[in-house]
Amino acid sequence: MRLVTYRGNVEAAARLGAVVDDLVVDVAKAGHHAGVSLPSSMLDFIDLGPPALVALEKILNEGKDNWPVGAALPLANVRLLAPIPRPRKNIFGIGLNYVEHVAESSRALDTAKDLPKQPIIFSKPPTSVIGPGDAIHHNKAITQQLDWEVELAVVMGRTARRVPEADALGFVFGYSVMIDVSARDNRRAGQWIYSKGQDTYAPFGPCIVTADEITDPHTLDLWLTVNGVEKQRSNTRHMLFKVPLLIADISAAMTLEPGDIIATGTPEGVGAGRSPQEWLWPGDVVEAEVTGIGRLRHPVVAI
Amino acid sequence: MRLVTYRGNVEAAARLGAVVDDLVVDVAKAGHHAGVSLPSSMLDFIDLGPPALVALEKILNEGKDNWPVGAALPLANVRLLAPIPRPRKNIFGIGLNYVEHVAESSRALDTAKDLPKQPIIFSKPPTSVIGPGDAIHHNKAITQQLDWEVELAVVMGRTARRVPEADALGFVFGYSVMIDVSARDNRRAGQWIYSKGQDTYAPFGPCIVTADEITDPHTLDLWLTVNGVEKQRSNTRHMLFKVPLLIADISAAMTLEPGDIIATGTPEGVGAGRSPQEWLWPGDVVEAEVTGIGRLRHPVVAI
Repeated sequence: MRLVTYRGNVEAAARLGAVVDDLVVDVAKAGHHAGVSLPSSMLDFIDLGPPALVALEKILNEGKDNWPVGAALPLANVRLLAPIPRPRKNIFGIGLNYVEHVAESSRALDTAKDLPKQPIIFSKPPTSVIGPGDAIHHNKAITQQLDWEVELAVVMGRTARRVPEADALGFVFGYSVMIDVSARDNRRAGQWIYSKGQDTYAPFGPCIVTADEITDPHTLDLWLTVNGVEKQRSNTRHMLFKVPLLIADISAAMTLEPGDIIATGTPEGVGAGRSPQEWLWPGDVVEAEVTGIGRLRHPVVAI
Repeated sequence: MRLVTYRGNVEAAARLGAVVDDLVVDVAKAGHHAGVSLPSSMLDFIDLGPPALVALEKILNEGKDNWPVGAALPLANVRLLAPIPRPRKNIFGIGLNYVEHVAESSRALDTAKDLPKQPIIFSKPPTSVIGPGDAIHHNKAITQQLDWEVELAVVMGRTARRVPEADALGFVFGYSVMIDVSARDNRRAGQWIYSKGQDTYAPFGPCIVTADEITDPHTLDLWLTVNGVEKQRSNTRHMLFKVPLLIADISAAMTLEPGDIIATGTPEGVGAGRSPQEWLWPGDVVEAEVTGIGRLRHPVVAI
């Protein structure tokens, strides 16, 4: 299932939708029509667990002739927001999680040349999240080194505390795409939150593909372009620490909760690692995709 | 005003209270009696802004004879929780923000000897928060270097975006105490979230003293003991980056929101900086106080 958070028109509140072909089906309305109470927000839906997924799947399988009037809108006519517009805590980011990116980062930045022995974790506040099409802010008073990083995002479905690696994928709700925008000149004594946590630095979406449709999250191509020129292209099989290990490792110390987001790290090809180095500037357009999930497109705008 | 989150008995839901002498006055109940709608949670109260503070102050000033039956309980009979049991995002922590602590940290850990030129920011997830008296977990599978850090915590009252230093204190709701528990052997490639963000690593409370009662947050003694032996004693005037600068600096890039918490850094005397080094172990008891705000007391317990 492909789930989105959307607005039918500018004034309307955000709604939870399921994408079927070129339509967005309103989950709460379709549920109501079918006599099933389903929520209108992604986090509430995730909280309900597998029964909500089963109920929604049944409704969608009944086909569009059974959806109530007004419950399905053309995808082209709605505005997509980030699938979780307001996470309940900071996003967990993973640094240096693709082998080639470790090498380019150690050449260009202040990170070590050796492969990390454990996941390197940082965070991005909920205020950094933006939805599909929203502007990435470029504040020239703060940065002259704004960089891109395409990443597979994992959305947790259940509370995970000390979860063994072998069981970890069972705690995943689904997968999405995140761009881990990073102001390289804003690292401070090694801490990355100021560099990666600024407002608009977490473009997220366009949808969450539920875990049942992606049995192996390490077979996915991902790429990023700036102004149409390809900068990153890799596959999630090149992750150093795979998703089950990340969940086991984080949950060994920090309880993961439904709706928590893990941005799993970026492959090689970031601006800092290029020769000469390249940075994002106002007027640029960044596009990024994880194959099978979806594509993000974001203008960079001066503030 | 001294505000707390409390439970009147084990089964009851958490409630917002105001401490008057040795009583806890239930804010929602006292408000209802006075014909004013006031909420039963700290975050909802903060969201209401100054009018709620004014209304509550008026009710409290009317004196206990005017509070309804059951609205005031002896402080000794209630269980205090963290004043904000579940923050809406990770706590902002400030590293190396007292001069002497920069020196001891550079001797003992991997941090620089020079004073930071800008605040060093990290984060602690909402799941790290515990209330007064709750156990700090010691997981020997993860750490043999569990350390203490007493800190002044700032609670934001208004949305702050690019706030000038001169205006910054006007955005503060109040002040509290936090212990920034840190597993020194869990730093990873310089990132501190795994070291400082584990479950139970943010003892917080016992109350929030509203900003009107602390016109200058840089005149406060703070201290910490382990098993009754003093380990830290300093004064918030020794902060390198003062509260107004911290708010200006963070809000220049990351929007601060009502209820956001900034743990402002710890003075010298942490375990890592002692010779020989000292660490927390199961059975230890940590006490910490910021004078004029309150005292925390937490056992360390093996898990």
